[in-house]
Amino acid sequence: MINRKIKPLEGIIVPLVTPLCGNNRIDIDGLSNLVEHVVRGGVHGIFILGTTGEAQSLSMSQREEMIKETSRILGNRLPLLVGISDTSLTDSTALAQKAYECGAYAVVATPPYYFATAQSELIDYFENLISLLPLPLFLYNMPVHTKVTFDPKTIKRIAQNEKVIGFKDSSANGTYLQTVMYTMRDDPEFMIFVGPEEMTAEMVLMGAHGGVNGGANLFPELYVELYGAAKSHNIEKVRRLQQKVMQISSGIYSKGKYGSSYLLGLKCALSVAGICSDFPAMPFTRFDEEYRNKIEQEMVKIENLLHTGKM
Amino acid sequence: MINRKIKPLEGIIVPLVTPLCGNNRIDIDGLSNLVEHVVRGGVHGIFILGTTGEAQSLSMSQREEMIKETSRILGNRLPLLVGISDTSLTDSTALAQKAYECGAYAVVATPPYYFATAQSELIDYFENLISLLPLPLFLYNMPVHTKVTFDPKTIKRIAQNEKVIGFKDSSANGTYLQTVMYTMRDDPEFMIFVGPEEMTAEMVLMGAHGGVNGGANLFPELYVELYGAAKSHNIEKVRRLQQKVMQISSGIYSKGKYGSSYLLGLKCALSVAGICSDFPAMPFTRFDEEYRNKIEQEMVKIENLLHTGKM
Amino acid sequence: MINRKIKPLEGIIVPLVTPLCGNNRIDIDGLSNLVEHVVRGGVHGIFILGTTGEAQSLSMSQREEMIKETSRILGNRLPLLVGISDTSLTDSTALAQKAYECGAYAVVATPPYYFATAQSELIDYFENLISLLPLPLFLYNMPVHTKVTFDPKTIKRIAQNEKVIGFKDSSANGTYLQTVMYTMRDDPEFMIFVGPEEMTAEMVLMGAHGGVNGGANLFPELYVELYGAAKSHNIEKVRRLQQKVMQISSGIYSKGKYGSSYLLGLKCALSVAGICSDFPAMPFTRFDEEYRNKIEQEMVKIENLLHTGKM
Amino acid sequence: MINRKIKPLEGIIVPLVTPLCGNNRIDIDGLSNLVEHVVRGGVHGIFILGTTGEAQSLSMSQREEMIKETSRILGNRLPLLVGISDTSLTDSTALAQKAYECGAYAVVATPPYYFATAQSELIDYFENLISLLPLPLFLYNMPVHTKVTFDPKTIKRIAQNEKVIGFKDSSANGTYLQTVMYTMRDDPEFMIFVGPEEMTAEMVLMGAHGGVNGGANLFPELYVELYGAAKSHNIEKVRRLQQKVMQISSGIYSKGKYGSSYLLGLKCALSVAGICSDFPAMPFTRFDEEYRNKIEQEMVKIENLLHTGKM
Repeated sequence: MINRKIKPLEGIIVPLVTPLCGNNRIDIDGLSNLVEHVVRGGVHGIFILGTTGEAQSLSMSQREEMIKETSRILGNRLPLLVGISDTSLTDSTALAQKAYECGAYAVVATPPYYFATAQSELIDYFENLISLLPLPLFLYNMPVHTKVTFDPKTIKRIAQNEKVIGFKDSSANGTYLQTVMYTMRDDPEFMIFVGPEEMTAEMVLMGAHGGVNGGANLFPELYVELYGAAKSHNIEKVRRLQQKVMQISSGIYSKGKYGSSYLLGLKCALSVAGICSDFPAMPFTRFDEEYRNKIEQEMVKIENLLHTGKM
Repeated sequence: MINRKIKPLEGIIVPLVTPLCGNNRIDIDGLSNLVEHVVRGGVHGIFILGTTGEAQSLSMSQREEMIKETSRILGNRLPLLVGISDTSLTDSTALAQKAYECGAYAVVATPPYYFATAQSELIDYFENLISLLPLPLFLYNMPVHTKVTFDPKTIKRIAQNEKVIGFKDSSANGTYLQTVMYTMRDDPEFMIFVGPEEMTAEMVLMGAHGGVNGGANLFPELYVELYGAAKSHNIEKVRRLQQKVMQISSGIYSKGKYGSSYLLGLKCALSVAGICSDFPAMPFTRFDEEYRNKIEQEMVKIENLLHTGKM
Repeated sequence: MINRKIKPLEGIIVPLVTPLCGNNRIDIDGLSNLVEHVVRGGVHGIFILGTTGEAQSLSMSQREEMIKETSRILGNRLPLLVGISDTSLTDSTALAQKAYECGAYAVVATPPYYFATAQSELIDYFENLISLLPLPLFLYNMPVHTKVTFDPKTIKRIAQNEKVIGFKDSSANGTYLQTVMYTMRDDPEFMIFVGPEEMTAEMVLMGAHGGVNGGANLFPELYVELYGAAKSHNIEKVRRLQQKVMQISSGIYSKGKYGSSYLLGLKCALSVAGICSDFPAMPFTRFDEEYRNKIEQEMVKIENLLHTGKM
Repeated sequence: MINRKIKPLEGIIVPLVTPLCGNNRIDIDGLSNLVEHVVRGGVHGIFILGTTGEAQSLSMSQREEMIKETSRILGNRLPLLVGISDTSLTDSTALAQKAYECGAYAVVATPPYYFATAQSELIDYFENLISLLPLPLFLYNMPVHTKVTFDPKTIKRIAQNEKVIGFKDSSANGTYLQTVMYTMRDDPEFMIFVGPEEMTAEMVLMGAHGGVNGGANLFPELYVELYGAAKSHNIEKVRRLQQKVMQISSGIYSKGKYGSSYLLGLKCALSVAGICSDFPAMPFTRFDEEYRNKIEQEMVKIENLLHTGKM
């Protein structure tokens, strides 16, 4: 039995958007608003510098600034998870050091994403990385962006190191995630978190620890309540709230023409809601007036749905 | 509201293996054994000539023989679904005619799988196909083999024709399947079936109609009982039975070295269980002695698990 | 040294379009026109029932009709190659038998394309297939449609059987094709043909035996002349003719919106040129008026280019 | 007509390996040896921080060190091209600034490689990047690592800016590269360089400006001579030298088990040849004794081939 020496998390972790000013600077006021918004919404943790946080599009110094500022604003109110995914082991380690100095709970890393690695190379890579980390680690599976999937046996192997405390899966592959959960069944403290909000409730019903759901930037209460319904096996409530999550997914994340729709839609909706600005980092640009109007209309529909439906 | 004039199915539909003799002939005795085995196991329907049934590896005349023989053996005991997936519209239609003559309940079709089609071409194709079909149709999403995914809006569009009665998804993508279910939410009689047995229970909890699970060839009672537990929202039982399904998945379907592991493992296990022979159709060959021994060992473990666990 | 007992081909083999009437019947008059057109154009062989021939979209009986009719029209004027690619070994063999009865020179087969096979399975499959074939075989690499690539070592292994006489590559991968040629360097009678007409000339310069170029349906003389220029190392002429081939490629094959552009553009251009009708088989439909107009304009440009340039 | 104000390059540009000590530091002595080796070998330019240079696996400060040191060692002897590919526009720009200060000839950039971009987003991204660059730019197409391919029309659009001076293609797709060359046919000063050494000669025959060939780290004279033969249309010599290049490709780059074979084989061979050490940056590790022995044997074969053959 692996002794992880850390209290496991459960519930909803927000993969925090990185609010930006138009000139590629971090929008500190927006960040402060956003952190207060999600804390007020009852989420169980905050994850910065993930895919939703556009970490890869930020410079190294912007990523360090984001760690420092979020930590300052959040204080000790919630566990802070920090993405350190990079193609350079050295730069990943530097980000982890910064996270440690700022009091983060854990770091989170994908496989390196320029060169695709074989599973044995992935094991080598993570064994090296872990030996240099001052904080516990979540593995982060994100094959659409990294081209590499953690084999369930690879996860089990890497997780023999007690510093590896959990796994976040954004593959959306239900068979795969069940296989990971089954492979790790003798290690119940190893945390399994689900990226896609559309399938978080069902995976919590089946035993996952929670979700890392982008929509919780916008409507944190909804995702917290859905998690709670799943955790308490209230299927009727789960199905009712799932409809609202699906309306957000189909209304907000699918408006653009490309793969960037999720990010641009989410940032636009946060701006419409008055929480922070809508500028993404390059290579993306914010929605134009036409798309913003569509998001505004969707937000009216969703607000109605949230407040008239029984939650 | 679309009036489908057909009683919807729910539960477990077996994607029937096609028992073969070594010389590429259908093993009629094996087929008879297998049909009796799954009927006795309580499944709710039988689907022949799907991926598990190796339809594409059979000649046109073998496929027609399979329709005729299964129909004869099964009689009216259960609804019979017949795969007509082909790259030729003409040959698909001929198979559907045969299915109709043999009293099948419905036919099932993937997109054509040599040329990849755009969504608008897929709509055209299915509108043409449907106009020629003497039976209701299930759409069958199997992107790993066909390279094409039905867009949820494409499904909705095609399903405006009342002859289109359901959708079988083998993508394993939880976000996708939730999006299909949400897109079809106003059409509750439109049947949604899940291919991967590893994620059927969770999708039934969330509202899917059932599973088309390969393992039900081998242990039909287990899949029927898991379906029932999910249908009645018995989460504890679902989780307990899910462990057994995962043991089958990881023990039987993952023994070979290639993508054919699932099929070869399943056929080998059926042979070990004395139900039918283990010959696959070309391009595959059956497991050698080394792999058969592994399957035998797994079967002992699984039988123990099934009979000592409370089911 | 493998003794192949067959005179190798060199030059341009036309992957013949299958002319169709609107109601999914073979257009025999169109077929006759097309065969006469390409024979007159000086091509060195005819390949029916390939990808350009839409073999997979035709029923088994249509494919047999196509073999019979083309053979009848062509007589002994040119070598006839017949595609037998199918997912069923039995049906592939039946097509080969028909080709043999009709006097074909050789058959051509891709890997089976529903189930993806590992290399060792591919070797097994082809060893089985070859043992049943009454005619010599070309291997046909077409990974975009079949999902499977012949490893160069697999080709060498399969080609140890003297019935395997050549390889047609439609991968468009220059590194791959050079590696195949290098792997087969001690077997100079093993024929290497290039599918994409955009890269045939350069591969002939480097030692390939010729091209199987779709554009030769339309402008057979151009492709024959380009082949001749490359064969005789006339680089200036190669570069000049290459510009015309590229104009056809960019003008005719890129007009539609989807992956079907090549096929629909080619069939439309053949119809504009008065050679045969433009109906494709399902899952595709012919260009509408808007696209036909574009093709008409391109054809004027190309005819000018062909007749004013020195050929 | 675009006035590029820069003398175009032709010939062989070495994508320089980054020599490393075991502890993830740049091996300055090895770098010096390597630079002298390739300069002596007659190459026409040096490209650092590309894929072969493992740029993504180096930290930002290591990349800056590599620019400074290579520039110092090389002096003005040859044009220096510097890879600035990154997922962060800000960090790419910082690398370009360093390259400018060190007197580089041009910079080279792939699309950002975490988020995949649509073509219109790619155009936006590069227009932004170019406006910030103090040096001319080569576009670098490397879809296997970046997931994104430059559409030929996108290249033409971006190249309307006179600061964009060339294109390096590592797709290995012959049809694609011909289409790019055809699309840019009215802009003959726009440089087209070919990544894969296996297909460089044929593309130079067809009009490309040269190759960016990894093997030129090891045997620069061979690649320079092959380029010269192709440039002067000496087909017999091209074919003879191509055999040697193919022997290097199949002997050195294919020994490992994974996608890292090319890099690990090349670095191992450089170490066997006494030029620099064989340590790769993480996520890779150098070949063990077994693989090093294989490379040693191949090097003996290749040296024999190079010195006995007429070059």
